[in-house]
Amino acid sequence: MIKRLQVGDRMSQVVIHDGTVYLAGQVALEKGGAPVAEQTQHILDRIDGLLKEAGTDKTKVLSATIWLSDISTFDEMNKVWDAWVPEGNAPARACVESKLAAPQFTVEIGIIAAL
Amino acid sequence: MIKRLQVGDRMSQVVIHDGTVYLAGQVALEKGGAPVAEQTQHILDRIDGLLKEAGTDKTKVLSATIWLSDISTFDEMNKVWDAWVPEGNAPARACVESKLAAPQFTVEIGIIAAL
Amino acid sequence: MIKRLQVGDRMSQVVIHDGTVYLAGQVALEKGGAPVAEQTQHILDRIDGLLKEAGTDKTKVLSATIWLSDISTFDEMNKVWDAWVPEGNAPARACVESKLAAPQFTVEIGIIAAL
Repeated sequence: MIKRLQVGDRMSQVVIHDGTVYLAGQVALEKGGAPVAEQTQHILDRIDGLLKEAGTDKTKVLSATIWLSDISTFDEMNKVWDAWVPEGNAPARACVESKLAAPQFTVEIGIIAAL
Repeated sequence: MIKRLQVGDRMSQVVIHDGTVYLAGQVALEKGGAPVAEQTQHILDRIDGLLKEAGTDKTKVLSATIWLSDISTFDEMNKVWDAWVPEGNAPARACVESKLAAPQFTVEIGIIAAL
Repeated sequence: MIKRLQVGDRMSQVVIHDGTVYLAGQVALEKGGAPVAEQTQHILDRIDGLLKEAGTDKTKVLSATIWLSDISTFDEMNKVWDAWVPEGNAPARACVESKLAAPQFTVEIGIIAAL
């Protein structure tokens, strides 16, 4: 009844249960230290890939939580975010400031989607 | 299968899927700069309105996440929160400190509810 | 349709709806001021207890959010977390820094699980 993808010892990148898809908080693994806009784009590309692997896509995102290590980058992140959101299918969203696991990561995005 | 209300380019205020309702993180849009208690009341009024629009109400809230820009306002927020929670129907809850998108907002609340 | 356990005026520790279980953010209530590893273990023991009371267990955790009051304790927390995660059943996870409700608590964990 529960399907997990990219399963590690610490977390799974995707967990599917009863039509709902939970993604692990995504950071810009290959873009650490890059500007916020670039990290955001890399994260959204990763999210697109994980959603595809789960059998869904960005038109079915229900909810997003965005953590910025510095909230003054809000507008820079949003420019990339707004371009990614599919017209008419924007998810519920919260965006707050929190330091992340490693200082080279300045954006983290968690997603709940429908299958 | 997914119903979205108050849909914007950045986020939807309400997303409904399979009996579960996700609200965008609510801030006190019309009370920026007001004391924490007043912002909290305004947010909870907004949440009541969004839940009504979704076809549900505060007795069916499953989970709440509360972000305070200054955790020392915990008691001030709770006084308003506790009065709002319907007896016997309190949601699961987490409350932590995070700076929010704009400095005039000192409280943000995210809600998951049942339809 | 909604079942709540350990219901208080402020929050319920467990809320169950349609096969999904939401736990309140757990802190180390009896270990305030203890080292992060000890707080983490106490929290995970509490989570095991709440999941059992809900009729489920840690092999069915879908998603976890971990807040650390000091992100430099990331490795210390993870050592305990990694040992707790059941092989092949790791949840989606996000871990960020946020101050918590009281300074003696340095770790808080929120859980969504399947019944």
